[in-house]
Parts: sequence; structure tokens; C-alpha cells
Amino acid sequence: MIEKLIFVTGNKNKAKEAQAILGIPIDVVNIDLEEIQSANLKEVVQKKTADAFKSVGKPLLVDDVGFYVEAWNGFPGPFIKFMLAALGSKELARLIYTSQNLQVVVKACIGYHDGENIHTFLGEVPGMITPVPIGENGFGFDTIFIPKDQVVTFAQMSEEDKNKISHRARALEELKQFLNK
Amino acid sequence: MIEKLIFVTGNKNKAKEAQAILGIPIDVVNIDLEEIQSANLKEVVQKKTADAFKSVGKPLLVDDVGFYVEAWNGFPGPFIKFMLAALGSKELARLIYTSQNLQVVVKACIGYHDGENIHTFLGEVPGMITPVPIGENGFGFDTIFIPKDQVVTFAQMSEEDKNKISHRARALEELKQFLNK
Repeated sequence: MIEKLIFVTGNKNKAKEAQAILGIPIDVVNIDLEEIQSANLKEVVQKKTADAFKSVGKPLLVDDVGFYVEAWNGFPGPFIKFMLAALGSKELARLIYTSQNLQVVVKACIGYHDGENIHTFLGEVPGMITPVPIGENGFGFDTIFIPKDQVVTFAQMSEEDKNKISHRARALEELKQFLNK
Repeated sequence: MIEKLIFVTGNKNKAKEAQAILGIPIDVVNIDLEEIQSANLKEVVQKKTADAFKSVGKPLLVDDVGFYVEAWNGFPGPFIKFMLAALGSKELARLIYTSQNLQVVVKACIGYHDGENIHTFLGEVPGMITPVPIGENGFGFDTIFIPKDQVVTFAQMSEEDKNKISHRARALEELKQFLNK
């Protein structure tokens, strides 16, 4: 069993969440990783994991996220970060609304380098878009995304509640099962 | 003066166009280059040029294109390839129309590795979007883009006419001036 892991991320909350789910201490290392242009989230994460291991040289985790709009055949996927940075969540929600299909799937992919090999773990949450941003918590698309079987957006949930059902939590659960095998 | 160059591209027509503008023979080499995720076209091209030189080992050209929607603060930029592949030009034009600002700028960036250093050359063409695709020529966004001071889309022009005013032609003219210095 692994006793400790490194999470390569600029977001300390991700490490806290991983620590809570995996039940082992997680150190944060913040380095800039180049990302490849690919519509394939797993491919982006595999490359990020390999690059992170080249810098850090120890077993580690990285993650990335994708936002798949059904009306747009899955676009923007892993490009969501750039789309949100340019348009903001309000304009993104408005554009999706004009497509008359509110279904989206959000995905998190965790990359784990065990010192020899790379493993990836995917967590998916289907849901729908709100017409305008609602809620104060979270970040990114949290204000415009209502997970299936819920009545509020991620941004209206407490961090604790969101972390029970989020795409990242699901990916971390997959990783946990793998580590416990 | 350089006597010959290599264009690393999957599109032979680009090499033909470069040959016509630069006035030197251009050989085509078709290798897959990883692209980094960046909203900065020049950065993407610099990385592509460096990667291409690692494979080819001789002076060479690469290129990339960006599509900057004013209403979206420049998005999708270099991600246009993925957006067009997922949505198609008709849906892209419809979405831009709902933003009530039809202005876009298309950009080409040529990367030139001279054997020692990387140089980049930018060509820009402002213009506007049509409500629906028009024309049969070209590819990508050509059917929905009318260059400033023109009355037809790139896709309604002959290849010869388009190559006189295109973003790529302008970038190649910049490169030509540099090579002739």
C-alpha cells in the first residue's frame, strides 16, 4: 500500500479532496505543465502525467477536466478552460441555450504515475445547463451545471456535498479502488 | 539566399502556395506534430517548429491558423480546428450570429526554422461572418468568412484570388521579405 502521494496542481483544494477520499497524505507540487492540443481528455492527461514525472521523479497525480456539450458533439471537451476564460460562464450558458439541447457531461481524468507506469481514471457526471449562472461556490462551470438527479448547481452546493458526487470525486474513487487492489 | 525549403504539412496545396509566393522549390514532408494547448497562436507555432526540426533536421516551414471571434474575446483562436470538426461551419456561424457581432479576424502563423533559430511570421485578415455557409471552394471556415473590402466568402473565390489576399499569403509575404533581406 502507498503511504504518501504528490498531486501536481495549482489548486490546493484538489489535494485536500484527494487526501479525504484516498485516506493518505497528499503533498502539493505546483509546476507549469504544457498541455497538448487534443480533443481526447485521456490523451491530454497521459501526456501531462509523463511530463510531471519527468520534473518530479516520484509517484504522483495530475488531473484535468472536460465539458462535453451534447448539441456540439462534445465540444469544448478539454478546451473548456480556454472557452470559459474567453467567454465566461454566462455567455457559454446562453450559447448552449440557443442550441435547444441543455444536456452536457462533465468529466475528470486523474493521471497516476506509479514510478514505472501511467494509469488514468475517469469520473463522469451527466447533467444540464442553467439559463444563467446560479450560486456562489466552486469555480469554472459550477454556476451553470446541475448534475442529474439534483435540483441545484454545483455552485449552490457546499464543498462537502459537491465532493460526494463530483466528476473528480468519482475519478478519485476509481483510483482508490485501484490502489487498494 | 536559400535554394530549397521543406514544408511540414499534410496539405500539399499549402506547399504549392508557398512555392508560388517564395519563388523557391518546396518539398512536402508529412509528419504528425503534437500541438500544445495554448490560446497563443505564435506559441503553438514555435513549439510545432521546434518539434518538426527535431524530426527532420533541416531548414523547414510549418504553419497554423487561428479564428478570432470578436464577440467571444478572440475564442476559439487556435482551437478553431477542433471547433469546426465538432460543430461544422453552419452551427459555428449560427452561434456567432446570436452574439450580434459578426466581426472576426483570421490569422495564419508561419514558423521557419533556419537550422539554428526559429522565426515566426503572422498574416491577419479581418472580416465578417455570413449567416449560413456560401460557396464551394476552400475548406474549414472559408464558406462563412467574407474578408474586409470583399463581397464574397473565401469559398466563393478561385484559389488564385484567395491566395492573393489570404491570411496565409500575407504570412508568406512576410517570410519572403525576411528571406530576401
